[in-house]
Amino acid sequence: MLDSFIKVMRPEIETALQEIVEEKIPAEYAGMKEMLRYHLGWDGEGAGPEAQGKRVRPLLLLLCTASSGTDWRLALPCAAAVELLHNFSLIHDDIEDRSDQRHGRQTLWKKWGLAQAVNAGDLMFTLAQTSILRMSANVPASVGLEMARLFNETCIKLTGGQYLDLSYENEREISIDAYWPMIAGKTAALLGSCAGLGALAAQVKGERFAAYQAFGFWLGQAFQVQDDYLGIWGDAELTGKPVDSDLVQGKKSLPVLFGLEQRGAFYRRWIEGGIQPEEVARLAHLLEEEGAKEFTLEKADGLTRRALDSLEIAICDTNDACLALRDMADLLLRRQN
Amino acid sequence: MLDSFIKVMRPEIETALQEIVEEKIPAEYAGMKEMLRYHLGWDGEGAGPEAQGKRVRPLLLLLCTASSGTDWRLALPCAAAVELLHNFSLIHDDIEDRSDQRHGRQTLWKKWGLAQAVNAGDLMFTLAQTSILRMSANVPASVGLEMARLFNETCIKLTGGQYLDLSYENEREISIDAYWPMIAGKTAALLGSCAGLGALAAQVKGERFAAYQAFGFWLGQAFQVQDDYLGIWGDAELTGKPVDSDLVQGKKSLPVLFGLEQRGAFYRRWIEGGIQPEEVARLAHLLEEEGAKEFTLEKADGLTRRALDSLEIAICDTNDACLALRDMADLLLRRQN
Repeated sequence: MLDSFIKVMRPEIETALQEIVEEKIPAEYAGMKEMLRYHLGWDGEGAGPEAQGKRVRPLLLLLCTASSGTDWRLALPCAAAVELLHNFSLIHDDIEDRSDQRHGRQTLWKKWGLAQAVNAGDLMFTLAQTSILRMSANVPASVGLEMARLFNETCIKLTGGQYLDLSYENEREISIDAYWPMIAGKTAALLGSCAGLGALAAQVKGERFAAYQAFGFWLGQAFQVQDDYLGIWGDAELTGKPVDSDLVQGKKSLPVLFGLEQRGAFYRRWIEGGIQPEEVARLAHLLEEEGAKEFTLEKADGLTRRALDSLEIAICDTNDACLALRDMADLLLRRQN
Repeated sequence: MLDSFIKVMRPEIETALQEIVEEKIPAEYAGMKEMLRYHLGWDGEGAGPEAQGKRVRPLLLLLCTASSGTDWRLALPCAAAVELLHNFSLIHDDIEDRSDQRHGRQTLWKKWGLAQAVNAGDLMFTLAQTSILRMSANVPASVGLEMARLFNETCIKLTGGQYLDLSYENEREISIDAYWPMIAGKTAALLGSCAGLGALAAQVKGERFAAYQAFGFWLGQAFQVQDDYLGIWGDAELTGKPVDSDLVQGKKSLPVLFGLEQRGAFYRRWIEGGIQPEEVARLAHLLEEEGAKEFTLEKADGLTRRALDSLEIAICDTNDACLALRDMADLLLRRQN
């Protein structure tokens, strides 16, 4: 069911994104348009579906609108806004993390320099704001304003999550308690808002609105924990490309934080630093023995259950979009790589 | 007359700014709040009125509201928004230009590192958006949305001006024609919006709204040309601190661009690069002989006239705020340093 929605929604999402970029960037700033079009995967070396990513956030948003029985097309400006916001945060995160590559291509700052990339990110952020304000053409002004406010509350959480992530880099060890607000800000807040905005566009209010938002939020938390799991015990990470393992990257993911709290053999190896690819299989096994794998899977299960419970409260209908939303949750939460 | 308005408006501007920062940044991001409070001149080494700057933009906005006979207090969320926007752009500009100092204090990125500063700038930008959306509590929803849209159009121009400025750095020479859109984006667009938003808050529409916006825009252009004039022929630059002269800084200001187009002795020295403080007086004199001083003063005069003509169309009243607006234009345009 999800596939048939993706097939019709994806082209319309790209069109909405293209419209904003083409209409809003004047000709005298052609160079900035080029940067944004490159980052969005439309132009330049390696452009194409791979470079564009899956557009998960706008799809989630539109499915939430559709599941409430409203024409999802009216939520397109908002769907474009969340994708632009996500991409703005990627541009700046890549600068802050000094990442050279994304989707197998050079990052914006690597290609155009840091100064132009910071500024291009600011433009992407502005276009996101411009796009969300366009919702007022499709919904009553008061709903349009409420959507813009929710959108900006999410932006505050995004910067907050990134602030915590950057702060943690300088600490040798952080607690599991400190992990949750960080991933809430970096991942789950935006997914929660996507679902909430999709519902608001359909003028869903009260408890059901809250349930949509909770669904997106717990989906985001579960997805991140799953991502942390795969970052150590994924097939590729264990056997195929151990260099990509979170253990080699030194990422303070949930299993690692659990392992550190055990103060056992894993802890003693981790604090020495510089984990090599050939150690990955042994350390992953050690983490499993110390209980990190079970702990992570349990957390992922609990969060997934919360997400699915919220979804059942949110959707009081059984239309095709509701089925597609369940498919999407399954797809995001049961992936193996 | 201006002074008496500043006396009552300044404290209320600071309060509006503080409210947004305190209410909107949750306790778990205390470190980000510290960064923003430092940048806004409230806390940390060297905090105080000097570090805060003059808050020219919100003052201009509030005076425009007051000059239309409306209580300026209802425009305070919008006044806070333009000041937050201005400060967001300063944080990112300092990163992009690698500036270590602002108002005699360390810049944010110098103090907290590049990554945290990019992210703190993003938060400042988000707070600006949050603040402008609050206008809908004070004006009809449709006006509130129009203000938010105008605000974001301005953000696009700000990033555009910075894009051009960064692009020009790599070019040995740019034409005077290329200079105007750059300063329009970097300086005049925001001042134009301040005046326009102040008028919109008073629900001024049509020709008078356009005249307010034009007043702010030409004021901004004139101010920048005046700034370029002082950057070479200001007392301090010529005799006191020639190291601060735009000639030593290598800044492609209007007099320099005029001088380059003459292809004379100034041009020949400039393209060799590395102008020293002891050469400043001689080169400033050379530029004057080649006509750059007269050209720059003429341009500043013409732009000032445009600004004042627009102001006369905008204000159809002769209340105290109108007098204060004229005072403000005089103050900005006839300063000697």
